[in-house]
Amino acid sequence: MSELRKDPVLSRWVIISRERSNRPQVFKDTPAQLSDSGSCPFCPGNEHMTPPEVYSIRNGNAEEGDAGWSLRVVPNMFPVLRIEGDLERRGVGMYDQMNGIGAHEVVIESRDHRRLLHEHPLEHIVEIFRAYRERMNDLLRDGRFEYIIVFKNQGMRAGASLDHPHSQIVALPIVPKRVMEEIHGSLQHWNQKKRCVYQDIIDQEVRMGERIVCENERFIVFCPYASIVPFETCILPKEHQPAYQRTSDDDHASLAEIIRELLNRYSRALGIDFDYNFIIHTVPSDQWCQENMPIANSVYRWHIEFYPKLSKTAGFEWGTEFYINPTPPEDAAAFLREVAGE
Amino acid sequence: MSELRKDPVLSRWVIISRERSNRPQVFKDTPAQLSDSGSCPFCPGNEHMTPPEVYSIRNGNAEEGDAGWSLRVVPNMFPVLRIEGDLERRGVGMYDQMNGIGAHEVVIESRDHRRLLHEHPLEHIVEIFRAYRERMNDLLRDGRFEYIIVFKNQGMRAGASLDHPHSQIVALPIVPKRVMEEIHGSLQHWNQKKRCVYQDIIDQEVRMGERIVCENERFIVFCPYASIVPFETCILPKEHQPAYQRTSDDDHASLAEIIRELLNRYSRALGIDFDYNFIIHTVPSDQWCQENMPIANSVYRWHIEFYPKLSKTAGFEWGTEFYINPTPPEDAAAFLREVAGE
Repeated sequence: MSELRKDPVLSRWVIISRERSNRPQVFKDTPAQLSDSGSCPFCPGNEHMTPPEVYSIRNGNAEEGDAGWSLRVVPNMFPVLRIEGDLERRGVGMYDQMNGIGAHEVVIESRDHRRLLHEHPLEHIVEIFRAYRERMNDLLRDGRFEYIIVFKNQGMRAGASLDHPHSQIVALPIVPKRVMEEIHGSLQHWNQKKRCVYQDIIDQEVRMGERIVCENERFIVFCPYASIVPFETCILPKEHQPAYQRTSDDDHASLAEIIRELLNRYSRALGIDFDYNFIIHTVPSDQWCQENMPIANSVYRWHIEFYPKLSKTAGFEWGTEFYINPTPPEDAAAFLREVAGE
Repeated sequence: MSELRKDPVLSRWVIISRERSNRPQVFKDTPAQLSDSGSCPFCPGNEHMTPPEVYSIRNGNAEEGDAGWSLRVVPNMFPVLRIEGDLERRGVGMYDQMNGIGAHEVVIESRDHRRLLHEHPLEHIVEIFRAYRERMNDLLRDGRFEYIIVFKNQGMRAGASLDHPHSQIVALPIVPKRVMEEIHGSLQHWNQKKRCVYQDIIDQEVRMGERIVCENERFIVFCPYASIVPFETCILPKEHQPAYQRTSDDDHASLAEIIRELLNRYSRALGIDFDYNFIIHTVPSDQWCQENMPIANSVYRWHIEFYPKLSKTAGFEWGTEFYINPTPPEDAAAFLREVAGE
């Protein structure tokens, strides 16, 4: 059973899991190669290799468990947190701990073992981003969860252990530190200026132009002023929206369009097989906001952060959270603007 | 010229550098292999391949520039920050920026291209840790610098680009975010309990025993309760000491001993060629403390954090600072205790 532990100095929660053997020898082995064999648990016909699905897109009357799906969401076979049981908080001397209650799901993005996210028709990309919202809202009905993280590890260098394209959803009984920092940072800006920090960023980026990659009706994509890695980008809604979980179908149509354009630009600039992570940052659960900071819904804006895995981070960054980025975001944005987005 | 930029939401400073070509193609190349050829700029006889040294250990009357050294500190050939010029802070609309003033030095730990840190005689390890202190104090005489980071990337997976064992020193005109968080966290503990959080941690770890790896007269080594990666360890002085820059020669003798023991344990548990990072965390400059938080010297304790590079971090960790650690620190400490330290 895994557990959540809080760092006594940094107030940062960590999941301590026993998902893999804890003998040091396991780390010496070469990592498992991603396979394209017929044994992929995410491929049609192998539905029995995953836990029962919690969400799917199906055509017509196909029954659950058969191969008539176009997208499936299933519990992770090796979850870092488990949904069964009551949330128990306890102190261990000066330390704080919770048992490993949560949820860990996998979004199998399509039937196709090889097709990358942006290679799908627009309507299918829309289905993927709608699935994230649907699962978020379902999980948020569970009062134990304060936050739902949606993220994608594309490629081995980005941490993927299976190559059938998929993304992941983790429901947490706490709000991650980075999100807390974003909320506090945007609140501080609000208190000083009575303005939304995200709107101020958009206004300045539009005025300066040099870090913008692309935009459409509802979204803007730019390389952040203080990017921590080369070719980092941020997708931000142009209007105030604190919660991804409250996005509309129209939002998803526009979002799918801009994400396809961004990933097309990335693959032309960085190579078709570039690895990346993206993470959706959104406001915590309604209950958390009501109890802790109702103003979070006024000052925060959901967004998606993209991190291409081009350079490795070294000790300097790990120990200090002080990053060295060898590519100015203005240069990265220029490259991404120059290549075709279609 | 590089520059420092502050994230407008997170208040995190980033170095935006142009040290390498910024064309995306450079990232597609396979990384340069570490070489053991005679062309190593850190090997004896190749002193002309580095900038003039700023510190060295020499036997007898050997003159600077010749090969009679046993340890050298030289400016980095490709510094992320430069020492020349005045520190200029400016606003770019809502964004904050500084020019890239700082220092970036390399500690060439010995003449031997292959000998790892813990394979040296104890007296030589002492010299290395004394060199860190000497360089810290020299750099802190420069009023532009608020903080000196000392770190080591051992092995390619940990970010090393040359295999002749070396460590690095970066002088910064700002205090890194993680150190600020540590100072604020230890101050909060002090305000609540009027006790040092680091002493409380030591007391509890000694009482519980299960996460302690080893200890000697002056230092204790343990796997932190909320470790973020497998086999993470922390070396903490047993007595109150805020500043590595004020450590004594006796401290270094004891520190060299415990570090050799820890690295011997690591190499027996994880394999002789295991990669790792370590980072010295210390209190900021006297000037910073006086102007900002004199109490930092009462509540903070310097320490060294070790991060073996065993597992890769994926998107989840990057975007949230919410880590999943598959090895409980109690298990890691038990393995490290079981193997020999000599």
